[in-house]
Amino acid sequence: MEHISLLSSSQHSFFTAIQKNKAPPLPFRLSKKRTYRRTPRLRCQKMYVPGFGEASPEAKAAKHLHNFFTYVAVRIVTAQLESYNPEAHLELKEFLDKHSVNDGDKFCADLMRESPRHKNIALRILEVRSVYCKKDFEWDNLELLASKMVNESNTRLMRDYVLETSDVENQE
Amino acid sequence: MEHISLLSSSQHSFFTAIQKNKAPPLPFRLSKKRTYRRTPRLRCQKMYVPGFGEASPEAKAAKHLHNFFTYVAVRIVTAQLESYNPEAHLELKEFLDKHSVNDGDKFCADLMRESPRHKNIALRILEVRSVYCKKDFEWDNLELLASKMVNESNTRLMRDYVLETSDVENQE
Repeated sequence: MEHISLLSSSQHSFFTAIQKNKAPPLPFRLSKKRTYRRTPRLRCQKMYVPGFGEASPEAKAAKHLHNFFTYVAVRIVTAQLESYNPEAHLELKEFLDKHSVNDGDKFCADLMRESPRHKNIALRILEVRSVYCKKDFEWDNLELLASKMVNESNTRLMRDYVLETSDVENQE
Repeated sequence: MEHISLLSSSQHSFFTAIQKNKAPPLPFRLSKKRTYRRTPRLRCQKMYVPGFGEASPEAKAAKHLHNFFTYVAVRIVTAQLESYNPEAHLELKEFLDKHSVNDGDKFCADLMRESPRHKNIALRILEVRSVYCKKDFEWDNLELLASKMVNESNTRLMRDYVLETSDVENQE
């Protein structure tokens, strides 16, 4: 074991500890690595939202918005057809009287199977809802409006409650 | 006017024109500025969405999300109360059996007026929905999921229609 004599004293103790099957006193570099491994823990500071199973609240909200986009696309296409294709406009109107747009995908599937002309309108609706979702809809504005709505609603609810239960009105 | 002789021929004509109170032949840089001023016209290339009156589709979607956030806040508070305040948890559960959360603001207003203890739960729900909307809800994720959902739904609807109407299945 001549090569051991070339090592420094700390390195020597490290290797001899390995030979004795003991946990070696870790040199500085190794112990620093362990500290590094400990830091990136998953610390989720969000509130626990139960009852969504495997899906997230975002996925549920996206599903609602998906149906909303179909509703908007139907309105857009109806207005477009009114100006340049009165016959197709009438057909779509009649179809709308009999079918609900609440389930957007079902509405489009039914519209496709009504007739070849209805199918073309359905394809147009699919195209419009895709473009509307990706280009026209103002996502930043949605976030701003929702935050503002929460603030205003909370203030209004608390103010109304205080006015009802306090003597403010009687004193005036 | 010895310094004019130091200028180039185009610069010379520019200065002499100023001296004669005439509109000078504009050098390249200035004429480019005028072009720049003309470009930022308001050109709205968005599709016309009828039927929303004074409100926008974004405002309507924000209203939907507002009710959704109240629903999520009710779920969060119910789960929190279950672990540290079983009495309040039971009271909220009983109230939920009798009242719908579909109209979030009405639900909170009714909860506030049920009893002083219910009022505290209602205030907690108002607080939680505000924090959830502003901090916990993943807006970017919502946009991504909605775009993905539109793509997948459109593809599925068209594929199903083609499979139904073509001879692909018969040939297999």
